[in-house]
Amino acid sequence: MDKQFIATQLEALQDDICNGLLELDKSASIQEDLWQRPGGGGGRTRAIIGSHIEKGGVNFSAVHGTLNAEAAKSLGIGAGDFFATGVSEAGDTWWFGGGIDASPHYISMDESAVFHNKLKRCCDNTDPTYYTRFKKWADDYFYIKHRQETRGIGGIFFDRLTNPEISKPVGLKFILEVGQIFLPAYTDLFLPNFEKPFNDTHKNWQLIRRGRYVEFNLAWDRGTRFGLETDGRAESILMSLPHDARWVYNHVPQPGSLEEQTQRMLKKDIDWISMSKP
Amino acid sequence: MDKQFIATQLEALQDDICNGLLELDKSASIQEDLWQRPGGGGGRTRAIIGSHIEKGGVNFSAVHGTLNAEAAKSLGIGAGDFFATGVSEAGDTWWFGGGIDASPHYISMDESAVFHNKLKRCCDNTDPTYYTRFKKWADDYFYIKHRQETRGIGGIFFDRLTNPEISKPVGLKFILEVGQIFLPAYTDLFLPNFEKPFNDTHKNWQLIRRGRYVEFNLAWDRGTRFGLETDGRAESILMSLPHDARWVYNHVPQPGSLEEQTQRMLKKDIDWISMSKP
Repeated sequence: MDKQFIATQLEALQDDICNGLLELDKSASIQEDLWQRPGGGGGRTRAIIGSHIEKGGVNFSAVHGTLNAEAAKSLGIGAGDFFATGVSEAGDTWWFGGGIDASPHYISMDESAVFHNKLKRCCDNTDPTYYTRFKKWADDYFYIKHRQETRGIGGIFFDRLTNPEISKPVGLKFILEVGQIFLPAYTDLFLPNFEKPFNDTHKNWQLIRRGRYVEFNLAWDRGTRFGLETDGRAESILMSLPHDARWVYNHVPQPGSLEEQTQRMLKKDIDWISMSKP
Repeated sequence: MDKQFIATQLEALQDDICNGLLELDKSASIQEDLWQRPGGGGGRTRAIIGSHIEKGGVNFSAVHGTLNAEAAKSLGIGAGDFFATGVSEAGDTWWFGGGIDASPHYISMDESAVFHNKLKRCCDNTDPTYYTRFKKWADDYFYIKHRQETRGIGGIFFDRLTNPEISKPVGLKFILEVGQIFLPAYTDLFLPNFEKPFNDTHKNWQLIRRGRYVEFNLAWDRGTRFGLETDGRAESILMSLPHDARWVYNHVPQPGSLEEQTQRMLKKDIDWISMSKP
């Protein structure tokens, strides 16, 4: 399968997601930055800023070059030439990685079930074992170890998806389908909520949860750490950091509050789909 | 030298700094948390919150126990019993570590020179080679690698200070003198600035610089990372994170602005003391 073909499909997905987001928030605009990687390849970074979507990023990259021994070791593969976009290739080895998750500031059981149901249907379409495996992988990945809490309601996460488990064409079909979920899944979360009024308590909690997001991304996210340590483009790597974040010393949600209810849901291994059934 | 004697001296220093800060900001109050470490020892965490000192931390800890192989390896010493407060001890090995630095949001050459002069006089009092060595150590330590910028104007930083270079009594005297600089040095920065008016541009830049502070502490600071990875008390380790921080995609200061002047000063190896001389 031609690398350029895969890149073109992913760029089209990037376009679709951007257009869909601009439909959701008519006040929003997109800033695009094209960048080249000194060692080979480059990307198309897109920041979206609006009145409802405060700050978002929809990025595409396809990089290639030569892996030095250190970077190869951290990936657990041999040094040599590599190519990476939706699929990663190094020598004769190739694999797919990807995922989708959500970090709502107030967790709704029903919204979480709808979200996870969408992911499950998408996974089942390719392999009936994927949802359970990749949902657990997301719980373990998006975990803020020093807080003993998850970043949000999780989703699916996978890496090193390769033969004989999957062929290249099926792998590409799968990651495109995962990417195509983003817009309907996000629309389901956006439409019922974007015009809701909020008060200072809500805003304060949002900022604190965004601080936890920052803690996860900078301290634990392997993708972010790999990018920063290998001199990737900092503004692209860090573009998902929130516009504003807050740290309040020893903040504990009020007993019985909505914030405490959300805090109690920031746990691994919650079966969102069956929990919300009546 | 008795461990309890060293701990008592450091607790008295913590008291002096807290009292001095409460004098500077009469509206401020201190929240104290005493904590015990499951493996041995504990600490006295103090958060200060006021109208001029938005959020500050003055912490003391004295911990002891047994180092497992992994933690010992990351410290480059043998596994076994350890004790750590201002002085660290593991088996027959002991060493001092410490430092002081500043991250002003707008850099003044004169204020930076006064600050570094204080540190130099303190270092010279013990060893005429210390300031140059420990100033460079701070430049290298407080460096945001992925931004290719320093966190602020630096200061002094040192670790593994041991015999035969220094004796235990002289080491203790030195770290106490470094600690005693904090209040006069901070007062010099506070008094001429705390009542200055500020506008939205200043506030925005402050929040962005605080975002960079967060990036350094979570992604690069070895002390923070060691604490988080060894299950230290998260609220104490992270208490220096700012109340509010901001990330603006691809923010570049206006040419010729005060923000750009500060950005150009966020470099290693600036000789603040001789640069500000007329």
